Amino acid sequence: MDNDITVFAGSAHPEFARRMCESLGVELQPARTTRFSNDCLQVQLEANCRRRDVYIVQPLVPPVQENLVELLLMLDAARGASATHVTAVIPHFSYARSDKKDASRISIGGRLVADLLVASGATRVITMALHSPQVHGFFSVPIDHLSAVPALANHFAGQGRDLSRTVVVSPDLGNAKVASQMADLLGVDVAAGSKRRMADDKVVIDSIVGEVAGCDVIVLDDEIANGGSIAELVRVLRERGVGTISVACTHGLFTGPALQRLAALDGVDEIVSTDTVPFPAAEPLPNMRTCSVTPLFAEAVRRTNRGESVSSLFDRPPAGVPAVE
Amino acid sequence: MDNDITVFAGSAHPEFARRMCESLGVELQPARTTRFSNDCLQVQLEANCRRRDVYIVQPLVPPVQENLVELLLMLDAARGASATHVTAVIPHFSYARSDKKDASRISIGGRLVADLLVASGATRVITMALHSPQVHGFFSVPIDHLSAVPALANHFAGQGRDLSRTVVVSPDLGNAKVASQMADLLGVDVAAGSKRRMADDKVVIDSIVGEVAGCDVIVLDDEIANGGSIAELVRVLRERGVGTISVACTHGLFTGPALQRLAALDGVDEIVSTDTVPFPAAEPLPNMRTCSVTPLFAEAVRRTNRGESVSSLFDRPPAGVPAVE
Amino acid sequence: MDNDITVFAGSAHPEFARRMCESLGVELQPARTTRFSNDCLQVQLEANCRRRDVYIVQPLVPPVQENLVELLLMLDAARGASATHVTAVIPHFSYARSDKKDASRISIGGRLVADLLVASGATRVITMALHSPQVHGFFSVPIDHLSAVPALANHFAGQGRDLSRTVVVSPDLGNAKVASQMADLLGVDVAAGSKRRMADDKVVIDSIVGEVAGCDVIVLDDEIANGGSIAELVRVLRERGVGTISVACTHGLFTGPALQRLAALDGVDEIVSTDTVPFPAAEPLPNMRTCSVTPLFAEAVRRTNRGESVSSLFDRPPAGVPAVE
Amino acid sequence: MDNDITVFAGSAHPEFARRMCESLGVELQPARTTRFSNDCLQVQLEANCRRRDVYIVQPLVPPVQENLVELLLMLDAARGASATHVTAVIPHFSYARSDKKDASRISIGGRLVADLLVASGATRVITMALHSPQVHGFFSVPIDHLSAVPALANHFAGQGRDLSRTVVVSPDLGNAKVASQMADLLGVDVAAGSKRRMADDKVVIDSIVGEVAGCDVIVLDDEIANGGSIAELVRVLRERGVGTISVACTHGLFTGPALQRLAALDGVDEIVSTDTVPFPAAEPLPNMRTCSVTPLFAEAVRRTNRGESVSSLFDRPPAGVPAVE
Amino acid sequence: MDNDITVFAGSAHPEFARRMCESLGVELQPARTTRFSNDCLQVQLEANCRRRDVYIVQPLVPPVQENLVELLLMLDAARGASATHVTAVIPHFSYARSDKKDASRISIGGRLVADLLVASGATRVITMALHSPQVHGFFSVPIDHLSAVPALANHFAGQGRDLSRTVVVSPDLGNAKVASQMADLLGVDVAAGSKRRMADDKVVIDSIVGEVAGCDVIVLDDEIANGGSIAELVRVLRERGVGTISVACTHGLFTGPALQRLAALDGVDEIVSTDTVPFPAAEPLPNMRTCSVTPLFAEAVRRTNRGESVSSLFDRPPAGVPAVE
Amino acid sequence: MDNDITVFAGSAHPEFARRMCESLGVELQPARTTRFSNDCLQVQLEANCRRRDVYIVQPLVPPVQENLVELLLMLDAARGASATHVTAVIPHFSYARSDKKDASRISIGGRLVADLLVASGATRVITMALHSPQVHGFFSVPIDHLSAVPALANHFAGQGRDLSRTVVVSPDLGNAKVASQMADLLGVDVAAGSKRRMADDKVVIDSIVGEVAGCDVIVLDDEIANGGSIAELVRVLRERGVGTISVACTHGLFTGPALQRLAALDGVDEIVSTDTVPFPAAEPLPNMRTCSVTPLFAEAVRRTNRGESVSSLFDRPPAGVPAVE
Repeated sequence: MDNDITVFAGSAHPEFARRMCESLGVELQPARTTRFSNDCLQVQLEANCRRRDVYIVQPLVPPVQENLVELLLMLDAARGASATHVTAVIPHFSYARSDKKDASRISIGGRLVADLLVASGATRVITMALHSPQVHGFFSVPIDHLSAVPALANHFAGQGRDLSRTVVVSPDLGNAKVASQMADLLGVDVAAGSKRRMADDKVVIDSIVGEVAGCDVIVLDDEIANGGSIAELVRVLRERGVGTISVACTHGLFTGPALQRLAALDGVDEIVSTDTVPFPAAEPLPNMRTCSVTPLFAEAVRRTNRGESVSSLFDRPPAGVPAVE
Repeated sequence: MDNDITVFAGSAHPEFARRMCESLGVELQPARTTRFSNDCLQVQLEANCRRRDVYIVQPLVPPVQENLVELLLMLDAARGASATHVTAVIPHFSYARSDKKDASRISIGGRLVADLLVASGATRVITMALHSPQVHGFFSVPIDHLSAVPALANHFAGQGRDLSRTVVVSPDLGNAKVASQMADLLGVDVAAGSKRRMADDKVVIDSIVGEVAGCDVIVLDDEIANGGSIAELVRVLRERGVGTISVACTHGLFTGPALQRLAALDGVDEIVSTDTVPFPAAEPLPNMRTCSVTPLFAEAVRRTNRGESVSSLFDRPPAGVPAVE
Repeated sequence: MDNDITVFAGSAHPEFARRMCESLGVELQPARTTRFSNDCLQVQLEANCRRRDVYIVQPLVPPVQENLVELLLMLDAARGASATHVTAVIPHFSYARSDKKDASRISIGGRLVADLLVASGATRVITMALHSPQVHGFFSVPIDHLSAVPALANHFAGQGRDLSRTVVVSPDLGNAKVASQMADLLGVDVAAGSKRRMADDKVVIDSIVGEVAGCDVIVLDDEIANGGSIAELVRVLRERGVGTISVACTHGLFTGPALQRLAALDGVDEIVSTDTVPFPAAEPLPNMRTCSVTPLFAEAVRRTNRGESVSSLFDRPPAGVPAVE
Repeated sequence: MDNDITVFAGSAHPEFARRMCESLGVELQPARTTRFSNDCLQVQLEANCRRRDVYIVQPLVPPVQENLVELLLMLDAARGASATHVTAVIPHFSYARSDKKDASRISIGGRLVADLLVASGATRVITMALHSPQVHGFFSVPIDHLSAVPALANHFAGQGRDLSRTVVVSPDLGNAKVASQMADLLGVDVAAGSKRRMADDKVVIDSIVGEVAGCDVIVLDDEIANGGSIAELVRVLRERGVGTISVACTHGLFTGPALQRLAALDGVDEIVSTDTVPFPAAEPLPNMRTCSVTPLFAEAVRRTNRGESVSSLFDRPPAGVPAVE
Repeated sequence: MDNDITVFAGSAHPEFARRMCESLGVELQPARTTRFSNDCLQVQLEANCRRRDVYIVQPLVPPVQENLVELLLMLDAARGASATHVTAVIPHFSYARSDKKDASRISIGGRLVADLLVASGATRVITMALHSPQVHGFFSVPIDHLSAVPALANHFAGQGRDLSRTVVVSPDLGNAKVASQMADLLGVDVAAGSKRRMADDKVVIDSIVGEVAGCDVIVLDDEIANGGSIAELVRVLRERGVGTISVACTHGLFTGPALQRLAALDGVDEIVSTDTVPFPAAEPLPNMRTCSVTPLFAEAVRRTNRGESVSSLFDRPPAGVPAVE
Repeated sequence: MDNDITVFAGSAHPEFARRMCESLGVELQPARTTRFSNDCLQVQLEANCRRRDVYIVQPLVPPVQENLVELLLMLDAARGASATHVTAVIPHFSYARSDKKDASRISIGGRLVADLLVASGATRVITMALHSPQVHGFFSVPIDHLSAVPALANHFAGQGRDLSRTVVVSPDLGNAKVASQMADLLGVDVAAGSKRRMADDKVVIDSIVGEVAGCDVIVLDDEIANGGSIAELVRVLRERGVGTISVACTHGLFTGPALQRLAALDGVDEIVSTDTVPFPAAEPLPNMRTCSVTPLFAEAVRRTNRGESVSSLFDRPPAGVPAVE
């Protein structure tokens, strides 16, 4: 019974945890969150943690602060209950966007939250597609940083369509490396927009580096929040005379005006995202698809628990399991 | 300019900070909180912190999790900006109620939050009326633990009324010590209810220890949340045939049904609370009074900054300034 | 051999450790304490600790400072000898009484000692009946906080006497919760004295909350030191015309004038304490009984070692083993 | 005498420290480094550090490991000598290039070295032009991250030449933001190469984003090591038919074949670098210029010592002093 | 008032603190130690510590464990009271003798106690004549390690006697370096016994290295505990036909049979010790002298407080003040 | 597969690691060290570390700083790769010579490096023959401190020569204890030189304590660096008319003029050292012998991994395996 995998989910995305547990073949253990009349939270883990290999699943999605504090309380509870390992499974680590001091006298939120997780008892972290790869270095505990790119590539490769005139386009030159990975997996070319951010919710694409005219395009981004970047990129691509357009992303937040913006886009065949984030609205758009990464998280958990290499997932993805960054 | 007092306020209760700064004769410095489209917060402190004695004012009132994370981001920003001292001024530390492990596999939230404050850069804490005095020991940094009792006692002493047949009543035998302090300051007797908590929002008063029949009563509690305890105590006191009833508390949260319950109480002359917590509704009840403790916090800050004893405030409160626990 | 239970005892109460080991079916390992001519201590653990699950048994009883430093030296020795886990088993954690700052510029000794234990290498603590439940939050490592109440309740339930007119009386309203637990287990009522402490060794009982006249009484306290509180309570109970009186406590220190005071009490049938503390004198009084909690500690150690839930001991005490707080 | 600025230099670049001290108007204090016969180092700080504001100046230039360990020994010596503050002044923090886990089972060297500096006693860091801005988040102590861009812009603005057809070109789209800053300061346009790294010392420029044909070009990079990127970019720019070419960088390492490569370049008017790194060879090329940033470092030290805002240097650079990132 | 020297003394040796304060020209502040009925200690510092430079004076002399825990409680109290610096002044750090692992599974007590001091809040330590100089490296905070040798040398130099045929003798070759220092100060030769320890209280001197026959001898040791080594050395010296014999030591513990043994020695002119340790008995022997080092400690405190070099005391001892190791 | 021994070697002495692995019957795992063009190092561990018992083998031999930083990078990589234990195997810990503050404002390098190892992820250390036994106390993690003395004694015992008139001579009275251990193992006498160090590379032997005239001599030292001490001792021994002379040491650094000096010595039969340090030159002298301690390190690793006592190696060395200090 020693070192048994024991998984709990916070309130942010229990469905993700449930699917991950299914892949693992273990039961999701119950946890009960209480809100007191003074608005403080209490979380009780309702299964034995002693000498267990405990995993707490919680993406930092809205309401982010509620979900973060709930996660910290759960980590501390698992530590206090004598778990051997306490792994925070954070499919979407949103505070990674606060990764530098672009104004004076601000906190680098990504580093602070990394420290809070460790202060609360996390001995390891599993996450996916951090906003910048340097955020890995904010953590003082081991971290498995998974990638959704192979899963997304499989999605397009598995549709049986002719990819010979396809190009993968990154909205941003800074992230072009990830688009290159997908292009390599699909055996196609890559291009990138030269993006300028005017405000948190307003960007302009100046130009496209690489050939796109007459090509079928797969736009790939790490995160779609309010959809502004994607809408702008699709507009520019249309001007360049591209063929079909598909959109893919890891973290499909679809906040604020995102769904309206995406619905208004002309000729987008498909919008594919993973399930790191719960779908925010009652109804997805008709061209939306989800590509689950829970089997990949489950495989990372299983290998972590068994002491097998997680990085080797990268080189030889097991059948039906996408790869690791 | 070295070691100058520099005060910032989070979003929870800027009015408190403003009044405190007025008492101190310093200006409240601006801070700007931004919420990104992915719901993450960023706070910029908009005044120099280098080698300054920085105070961040934020009670942990609803929305508690938002206010807590904002406070942590501000502490980290002040530390990163080379402040000499970073003091968290938390007039109401609500997580103090999570002070023991009354169920298995829960976090002791009060200890966890104390650790998070220190992990984020707090080098000192000033707070008031912690739910239990042991919570002081949860902090690994120095903490000034102020008391509102002298301020509240002054309130009643200053009304010129005859206190000869007055008794101070605690709803709870566990907290009777604080009621005793007020009784001593007013030169009157003390009594206490024997309270039994049925649920987070349901209590029963079994009996009253001490003589109350025919007496004017001042009910004193550390916190009024939904008003259940107070309503129950007033009901029992009425049965015992007391004279006038006044109600006093440090932290007037007045959450949920509190205002309706208090409005429905028969013959309560006055409900006095301090301003550690922002008043939650548009309209107070006609019999509500506020007794500001900002001069006391200001005095604690001034003495801290000057290296004078804060505990001596207890023995010799300066004119117009209530004392320290 | 990995993770084998390995138990050592300090000088404070080796008999407790021996009985606990008997219950566990393991041998108590030898440790040798040397006092140098300059009065410094050295302790050698005389059995292999490498990759072992090590337990150091030492209640903090007089001479407290000697026993504390010896314990710290033993924890450090076990850590330095590559133990996997180092658990401090502290049946009586006396410094828990220093749990708040009731004077200015004192140390909160309970928190300090908790930090010293961790600084010396303790990775877990097992203890019983802390003076206040908040002291649990002083520790930054997992702690199993056991209760003697079920064992004491079993003692009275097992005597075959008619409990129908029995009431459990707490000397102190603050601790009435523990008396309630015993009352619930015995299916009887509870009452409490309203205690006022005049000095460290002088208390006055003002009144009794709850009905006691004509009832058989079981007085329950967490600790009997010099016996002052108990003597005073028995005096007051006699005045109220109670029937038989029994006295029960977890930690029977019986310091200073305790034995004389208890011997002088009129009509006390029985004084029951557990064995968390070595009996301080050559001769117990004729009406004294000991109720051993070593099987409970042994069970907690066994479950900790096997990774079984300790808190579940609370709900379903195994045959012959009392429960856990 | 309290809090006096006290500056020591390691062996890496004493000339930088000397110039910085000159700007500050303080004397560089002596430190003596000894190498024992077993190759271990010892450094003695030969001036009083007690209650002083101590600065240790050491860029991490070749031999990097020797210089790093010498710096750690000096920080520890200053801490042990009771300095109030110990600031590591690291004009070139070369380990910042190890900022992500681009292979499995490697250390993120930038984070590790940040932790080693703190473990050795650094309470603050002053550095310039970190390879990526996220590296700021690797440090758990306050860090002032200066920029050489204003100094370099001043250099070109002060030459009295016509900048109307000038464009600033970044070799790399990822770093285009820094080139934009210089372009803004000079009131000119910006362009960027799309760089692909084939190996540590082999890059290919695929294309240029932005108009350059017929323009005078200022190439700006954060660091020139072996000169491969610059040579490739100049080749591509020549193909595009640019006018004059100047090259500017913050950290002029000029390692390995750099000088030959740069000497072989056709029609490069000027190669400007700052003095964060000692010039590696006996003879600079005839078109090489140095632009000292020691006044900027001196100003940052002065403001740090006086508790003045360093970030405000950014907005209003004092006469003759370049600005802060 | 900021950073004022504030001195408290524990119970071990208040006389030392009083004399040190006299030299400093400050008043010794009161502290009150209470022992509860359960034998736990509480210490209240009875003067303001806020922003003060606090010194707690306590040699670790018998009862060592009592004195150690009292010191830890005082350090923690000073930290909690917001002292700027908390310096443990430990004239005799007896646990320094536990400086290596000379048996398996023991604690290195000197390192453990150093860690406990820091865990309790000590930010600096002032001590004298550690048993081995390596113990300095056990501390993670700055430490001023004073030497009594100059004071003792002054004692002999000031007697006006002819030192031309004097030799300083160390009982132990390992400590001969300290004897050399005194010999250098007096301009005389040095010799040493080759000591073999048979047990904690039994040593044998095999031989004397260096010429002693016909010389006047000053025996110098760092500590005299039970006097066994000294008695043995005097016996051997007598055999070698030496002239007069004087004995000097830093720490005069004189435990157990020490006074009898020293009284029984034939022809020892003088036994000189410093006052780091309180004299253990009612009556010193007629040939005993004390040489106070409190002026040296006072000077170290004064310089520490003013930010002056303490190590420079070594080179230029001020009039009437002995030097620093 | 859990907790499998996984050994990596740094660049300092891979041959040692290879031999140790052979004794262990495991394969040495590959690690690849890259030096970037800016002289920074990167090390990739090329085998899975997850839940493994990882050992990194690296003596701190010249170039010491390069080897130290490489070791730190490897420890951090192993920690980040989720190793269960990370043991630094440091056959020669050269910084142990920096074990005291023999000048003001220097770092105690041995303590600093111990802290750096722990900050980088070492959870345990295995080393041999530390310069002074107190250095053990510099480490905050468990350390196995092995001794080469039994292996060296076996070497001489196994030669079948008549040892009846042999004496083991220590060059230094401070280290005579180690020589005594060898003498005990061989059943012979011990003597020691009285050494005075004039400079890092110049010593003088004043006298020899113990009888050596006419005896065969085995000189034993912990380390031979430039050979100065040994040459001086051999010169003095020759003057005293000894018989044959053999030289033995643990760490044979043979730096600078060592080989010339040793070659020039008259009548030294044999110079024996262990293999903790790689042999520095192409050609050993004809009278040089190596005595491998890799079986001892292998045995310590095996026992550590299996949770068996390492200290018991001391009492009962297994066949062919020398003992542990």
